[in-house]
Amino acid sequence: MIRVGINGYGTIGKRVADAVRAQPDMEVVGVAKTRPNFEAQSAVEKGFDLYAAIEDRKPQFGEAGIELAGDVEELVEASDIVVDACPSGIGADNAEMYREYDTPALLQGGEDSDVVGASFNARSNYDAVEGVDLVRVVSCNTTGLSRLIAPLQEAYGIEKVRATLVRRGGDPTQSDRGPINDILPDPVGLPSHHGPDVNTIYPDLDIDTLGLKVPATLMHMHSVNVSLESEPTAEKVRTLLEGERRMFVIPEWLGVDGSGAIKELAQDADRPRADIWENCIWGESISMEGNDLYLFQAIHQESDVVPENVDAIRAVLGEADQEESITTTDEAMGLDVPLTQMR
Amino acid sequence: MIRVGINGYGTIGKRVADAVRAQPDMEVVGVAKTRPNFEAQSAVEKGFDLYAAIEDRKPQFGEAGIELAGDVEELVEASDIVVDACPSGIGADNAEMYREYDTPALLQGGEDSDVVGASFNARSNYDAVEGVDLVRVVSCNTTGLSRLIAPLQEAYGIEKVRATLVRRGGDPTQSDRGPINDILPDPVGLPSHHGPDVNTIYPDLDIDTLGLKVPATLMHMHSVNVSLESEPTAEKVRTLLEGERRMFVIPEWLGVDGSGAIKELAQDADRPRADIWENCIWGESISMEGNDLYLFQAIHQESDVVPENVDAIRAVLGEADQEESITTTDEAMGLDVPLTQMR
Amino acid sequence: MIRVGINGYGTIGKRVADAVRAQPDMEVVGVAKTRPNFEAQSAVEKGFDLYAAIEDRKPQFGEAGIELAGDVEELVEASDIVVDACPSGIGADNAEMYREYDTPALLQGGEDSDVVGASFNARSNYDAVEGVDLVRVVSCNTTGLSRLIAPLQEAYGIEKVRATLVRRGGDPTQSDRGPINDILPDPVGLPSHHGPDVNTIYPDLDIDTLGLKVPATLMHMHSVNVSLESEPTAEKVRTLLEGERRMFVIPEWLGVDGSGAIKELAQDADRPRADIWENCIWGESISMEGNDLYLFQAIHQESDVVPENVDAIRAVLGEADQEESITTTDEAMGLDVPLTQMR
Amino acid sequence: MIRVGINGYGTIGKRVADAVRAQPDMEVVGVAKTRPNFEAQSAVEKGFDLYAAIEDRKPQFGEAGIELAGDVEELVEASDIVVDACPSGIGADNAEMYREYDTPALLQGGEDSDVVGASFNARSNYDAVEGVDLVRVVSCNTTGLSRLIAPLQEAYGIEKVRATLVRRGGDPTQSDRGPINDILPDPVGLPSHHGPDVNTIYPDLDIDTLGLKVPATLMHMHSVNVSLESEPTAEKVRTLLEGERRMFVIPEWLGVDGSGAIKELAQDADRPRADIWENCIWGESISMEGNDLYLFQAIHQESDVVPENVDAIRAVLGEADQEESITTTDEAMGLDVPLTQMR
Repeated sequence: MIRVGINGYGTIGKRVADAVRAQPDMEVVGVAKTRPNFEAQSAVEKGFDLYAAIEDRKPQFGEAGIELAGDVEELVEASDIVVDACPSGIGADNAEMYREYDTPALLQGGEDSDVVGASFNARSNYDAVEGVDLVRVVSCNTTGLSRLIAPLQEAYGIEKVRATLVRRGGDPTQSDRGPINDILPDPVGLPSHHGPDVNTIYPDLDIDTLGLKVPATLMHMHSVNVSLESEPTAEKVRTLLEGERRMFVIPEWLGVDGSGAIKELAQDADRPRADIWENCIWGESISMEGNDLYLFQAIHQESDVVPENVDAIRAVLGEADQEESITTTDEAMGLDVPLTQMR
Repeated sequence: MIRVGINGYGTIGKRVADAVRAQPDMEVVGVAKTRPNFEAQSAVEKGFDLYAAIEDRKPQFGEAGIELAGDVEELVEASDIVVDACPSGIGADNAEMYREYDTPALLQGGEDSDVVGASFNARSNYDAVEGVDLVRVVSCNTTGLSRLIAPLQEAYGIEKVRATLVRRGGDPTQSDRGPINDILPDPVGLPSHHGPDVNTIYPDLDIDTLGLKVPATLMHMHSVNVSLESEPTAEKVRTLLEGERRMFVIPEWLGVDGSGAIKELAQDADRPRADIWENCIWGESISMEGNDLYLFQAIHQESDVVPENVDAIRAVLGEADQEESITTTDEAMGLDVPLTQMR
Repeated sequence: MIRVGINGYGTIGKRVADAVRAQPDMEVVGVAKTRPNFEAQSAVEKGFDLYAAIEDRKPQFGEAGIELAGDVEELVEASDIVVDACPSGIGADNAEMYREYDTPALLQGGEDSDVVGASFNARSNYDAVEGVDLVRVVSCNTTGLSRLIAPLQEAYGIEKVRATLVRRGGDPTQSDRGPINDILPDPVGLPSHHGPDVNTIYPDLDIDTLGLKVPATLMHMHSVNVSLESEPTAEKVRTLLEGERRMFVIPEWLGVDGSGAIKELAQDADRPRADIWENCIWGESISMEGNDLYLFQAIHQESDVVPENVDAIRAVLGEADQEESITTTDEAMGLDVPLTQMR
Repeated sequence: MIRVGINGYGTIGKRVADAVRAQPDMEVVGVAKTRPNFEAQSAVEKGFDLYAAIEDRKPQFGEAGIELAGDVEELVEASDIVVDACPSGIGADNAEMYREYDTPALLQGGEDSDVVGASFNARSNYDAVEGVDLVRVVSCNTTGLSRLIAPLQEAYGIEKVRATLVRRGGDPTQSDRGPINDILPDPVGLPSHHGPDVNTIYPDLDIDTLGLKVPATLMHMHSVNVSLESEPTAEKVRTLLEGERRMFVIPEWLGVDGSGAIKELAQDADRPRADIWENCIWGESISMEGNDLYLFQAIHQESDVVPENVDAIRAVLGEADQEESITTTDEAMGLDVPLTQMR
């Protein structure tokens, strides 16, 4: 059993903890939190051992009646690998601690790729991170793009990718984020940083991205153009993508018009937290004009990186090859069951 | 076993079907649908027998590869009781069919109370509907208000209720509904129809309501004033409400600031569809000024009537008393477990 | 001519500057800004002398090619009165400077009423502030409530006011404010601070308020209940309110359903910045149940205090009586022309 | 003086009426309305003669106390040209009437280009419509794209255009339109119809477009890629666009982050209805990657076609050449004054 520590128990951390626990070859050593808040108690109730991320605040846990298993250093020491799901920037600060205990660690996509040399996407570069100490599981948007690029690159070759990322303004609980009634270029300067981030996975890919922010909370939406090196029919491309794992090509008859409907599918399918781990591509949108492929895909910012973190654990430790890991992860999570079926 | 038919399998129908199936003393005979769409297939996959609601469209099911168990009349005939979860107005049209087969039926709150004589709320008037052929389970908002009124009426007496219902513009999947950036008096004429609807449960209650519609999808919000006949402390009222079933008094330490955070709790607690069946009352908001009680409560429009429908089945058929039914319903659904705990 | 200085040139300041300039008995000495940004340049272009609010930043104006008339102290010294439209909290900090130069000043409603003893609403307590050094023009919401309370109090007597303020999350340009998809109790604790703020104008009034925040930007919406000391018909109340200045009773035939439609009226009427200076009350909503009056009113957070600031200038300096001032202000601004007519 | 009739007095019609009246060489014969509603009265108040668009409803105007100058046929007969601003689809139905009276007519972009042969954009094909009976002034989005394409085509040659149109869900007054919290592919099928619509202006242009709909009301946003036939620097492109009329290249120092801020500029500049007639391009966004140009532009759906309609009048009647007409139109409307300056 791979002993996994989770440092940070928020939007990503709590999902990774559940996903890791579901794996046949992994166990959760514990989770680290900075404060004894609701999520801390929720972790305890779920039976996860709780570690204090900040020594000074340990007494606060006691006052709140929450028993601690130790402090974060002990968690790191006791783990074969740590998934760091702390807020952006903190992960990089933690790197030294992970090195000190000689524990490999996965950081999240919000960390700077200049600080963390290796980036990871299960479909794209599984084999590249074996034995690497510090690996960045790329962001939700970059994960979504990489999963799409991989099969297209292999099957047809890619001349250039141009994508407009219409991003949700905030998550459903982030009530202090806007905009309320606006469409914001974000960043205004072009191309956006998302393209270079994809280049940490595909260094030689020619890709330009543009980012916008809109008043929606459920999922990001990608308006994608890929100039291919050959000219397959749209049907062929669709069949290719339908054959991919972690990709749900939305059939026309479902009548799915947006992310609200996708979330409803996930709720009806009894997915945990109604999570949508896969890229959701509108089948009808897949089209070819000359060698230009166009399509729309929706990306669930809260969860699409979760299976990627699970795979990265095995990839870094060399515990399974790509095919084996993805299959195991997906079956354990229920990601092998299409979004239209009960899990 | 009580044999329950479900006519209509949309937002409410699919939830009621699951809740009925979970009851130890009930079974789902089948569900009726008008068209062989996604939800029809979803019903089949869940193992519910499917009946055609419209005879003319039966061939369409065959074409879609969906096997039918019969038509809706057969479902009605085979059922001890039918839950009608058809769109507003259709339920009343169906009443004749239910009478013809001598099958009692529950209609939903969108039906006109002039057409359906008896209205139902489990906490308020469970005993009033035994043996009644046609019973209306009141709407989400009226259910929410009735649950609140019941204990206050009993404990302190009510002089008058004044409530502003700030309603969500549409459900998460209703992408064609607005407003996008407005606050709409709806209805403009005052008092709104919600007060009279509460009067179908509490005929002698003095209640005035005002309705608004805003750009939100998750839950309704009630701004409530109750002029009591006595002057309890706010603490006493809070304790009273904390002791009520189907009522979640949100503790301050949770840091819940709105419906996004409530939905997150339901997701984390692994509630089916992240449903929030109970009134969610901000504990901190409960306050007394003289004999005037004020509080905020959030109401999940998609699900708070679901346990009420289940209770109404037993109430109409005389199969259990109030206490027994509510306890059974809640335990079977997991509604006895607080929203902060894993189901 | 009354010489008026404006300290702060943002949402409120720029509107007050235009309104003051339009008055026959006033002139704008100048406006003070902290930074040489767009609004500073806009002030220059409009021909307002510009003063530096922060000495250290004076060179920045020169670098930006913006000529300064002096620093804020000189503006204060040269003015008969200053309208302070700085961000909340800064106004109170400035009070000492105003006292030093013996210049009376108007602060805005965001300032703490504990710090500024006197509060002002033209309709309600015009005569109370003559000769007072520091006067607070109450906030947009309190202004809207005070204007409504005044005639009701006079005509019928008020037993109690209960109001739910459904507030816009942010102004149209405040793209960093939320919520995006939520209805937030704000503040959660009840009653809200808005009631006590009305009490700075009507000390003996019994009033309880509740506040919410929603994803809209155009106007606040008040859901108002006033328990009167007598029982006029709704028609009488409507006629009373229709006879009030700075109050627009929306006629049914206009088909106005929300703040978007009100803003459109203001645009069509060629109002500057499409401002809506008056309370907008839905005529159809005005209703009586026993002695309980109910109605909906929309309040334009960016502009309803502007005419109040103008009147407060005359009130403090004793330059006109209430009737004279309100008439002059309204005619000069075009506020005497109904929202349905071209200015 | 060119005698112009306006058939339809809604969002576009009322703006065109004002713009036509402001021209030195035009007069408004009258405006036609179907019903005696608010806008009809507003037209009367502005001094426009009112004509009944539907004969049967003429008595309704009398009942509403609105005097009619005649019926729409008389308006058509008395006009040298008619601007038809009726809802989509009605314009095409009216075509026969215009032909009958031998009056040339301008239809709006919502009409089918198959029905109306000639399409118009002042910057792109002014000379193409002289003497044509029925001319379609292309839609807001197509106008925005055409204005951008024209100078790029002339200066650098265009290989291909790819644009994602992130469209506002509804106008500020359209409170019944959604979505509330979603990002909708619209249309789902790609490429969208917007590209072919641009081809009615630029028949040989290679252009693919994608459409989305989001919860915003103020402006559309275009995420544009133009593969040029040469490789100018971004600075050169920016200078080129800054030199274009009806194009506002937003300078960085303005701090404009979205359409809310643009609308504020228009309000501060005292534009009628705070209209933004020009394409608003973020200067900072203009960038070149190889021969790929990228930029963001915001388009005001309610008004950018207004000056185009004015020019189309002269173009069809042969009353002025392109340069003369655009100059006259812009000066009369105040469109020659940048958005950052007082009109």
